[in-house]
Amino acid sequence: MNLAAEIALAHRLADAARAEILPLFRTPVSSEAKGDATPVTIADRNAEEAMRRLLKAEMGQDGVHGEEFGVEEGRSGRQWVLDPIDGTTAFLAGRATFGTLIALLVDGFPVLGLIDQPVLGERWLGVAGQATTLNGKSVNTRQCRELARATIATTGPQYFTQTEGEMFMALASQTDHKRMVMGGDCYNYACLATGHIDVVCEAGLKLHDFAALVPVVEGAGGLMCDWNGEPLHGQSDGHVLALGDPARLEDVLGALAGAPPGHDHGH
Amino acid sequence: MNLAAEIALAHRLADAARAEILPLFRTPVSSEAKGDATPVTIADRNAEEAMRRLLKAEMGQDGVHGEEFGVEEGRSGRQWVLDPIDGTTAFLAGRATFGTLIALLVDGFPVLGLIDQPVLGERWLGVAGQATTLNGKSVNTRQCRELARATIATTGPQYFTQTEGEMFMALASQTDHKRMVMGGDCYNYACLATGHIDVVCEAGLKLHDFAALVPVVEGAGGLMCDWNGEPLHGQSDGHVLALGDPARLEDVLGALAGAPPGHDHGH
Repeated sequence: MNLAAEIALAHRLADAARAEILPLFRTPVSSEAKGDATPVTIADRNAEEAMRRLLKAEMGQDGVHGEEFGVEEGRSGRQWVLDPIDGTTAFLAGRATFGTLIALLVDGFPVLGLIDQPVLGERWLGVAGQATTLNGKSVNTRQCRELARATIATTGPQYFTQTEGEMFMALASQTDHKRMVMGGDCYNYACLATGHIDVVCEAGLKLHDFAALVPVVEGAGGLMCDWNGEPLHGQSDGHVLALGDPARLEDVLGALAGAPPGHDHGH
Repeated sequence: MNLAAEIALAHRLADAARAEILPLFRTPVSSEAKGDATPVTIADRNAEEAMRRLLKAEMGQDGVHGEEFGVEEGRSGRQWVLDPIDGTTAFLAGRATFGTLIALLVDGFPVLGLIDQPVLGERWLGVAGQATTLNGKSVNTRQCRELARATIATTGPQYFTQTEGEMFMALASQTDHKRMVMGGDCYNYACLATGHIDVVCEAGLKLHDFAALVPVVEGAGGLMCDWNGEPLHGQSDGHVLALGDPARLEDVLGALAGAPPGHDHGH
């Protein structure tokens, strides 16, 4: 699949979003501001509108699925999936760990994904069959020989139901939980793709939250799937796993399901 | 208290720490690396040594209390408190939310505090009786008229005992928990001082984790105390609260203690 034109367009979409988002980061906001009145809502909408304008002009036959303005069906079997600001609470809290997510789906499966962090000027690009890059340089996930040494990340326990939280804890308790990190949203997957985190485990994600992450993580040597180990696609139920080292898949799925830890290779 | 020389020195300490830390951020690290072998440990030690050398040369009569190399008593009644990398798990995870913390205590109470984020080049400085600055510009906490609209932050539930976790949840449940953010370490207090977070609540902090935060938060108009509302000092027990709006103190202490929410001004 030659996606050169789509890659070039994805960069221009991210540039357009960045231009809308950056001026609104850390602008004053009352703690009473709600919904429409917050800078994140304004940035979110303006960025998605800017991206939709470009898509309509340049690849008008493709569908568009955006967090803010919903689904526009296309005629090509392809769909662009946009989340202008993933990590809105982080954005509002003044933390440069949010990101713009852009994905291209073909027949429901993500083949191109881009994560852009405007404040730090960092951009991860993943394309099916190509090496993932951070600002143009290849990045790789790292090997993780045993789950007990894995660094695990999740955005926060508040996003789990009770059962999901118990499953997450069953998994986390088998990792190196002194190094567990909370918060992070899409940025955790970018850090996993760059070899600094081993496992990300989340629930309740929507298509626009995870579609772009798949090509980024997999092009860096990692694996993404749902909590049953199934590939992620347009109909996935929002239970998302990312592994830096695909060899740990069985251990992670077993731990999530409450299985006792496997053979410990290290001792 | 004229602290001009101490302020100038604090900047040079932070510059020295930054020079040791930045080159080691995002350097490859095996998930198996432990203790001495991790880049964060090397950066932590090198940065603290660099700061101790400067302090010895320039203010040798003051005591030094550092996270890595312990306490050196002084003869002046003053003590510099250093945490070269607060947020070591964030550093290892590749996230630019860690910080270098530098404080000066007089008679056990912090009168100068500095939070430095090397990757973003952000430096917050707080001095008793002066307005807190971020890279030289004054910053302010924001007003928060009711706890129900407050954004609350904490680094993660894994740092609470069960009882502390229950108290935190009693407080969090009375805030706007859709905007709750996890992760962040010292960076949460910096974002509170800049008007983006209303409450930070943590437990298990050591003197080097919280000393520098007090002048930064209070010089921006906020309040720091322990979970009983007592001022923080060298003998505090590590239960730390930061409020952007000091008028919410009674509500926060009541909520932590499990009291029913106060009168809701908004409805």
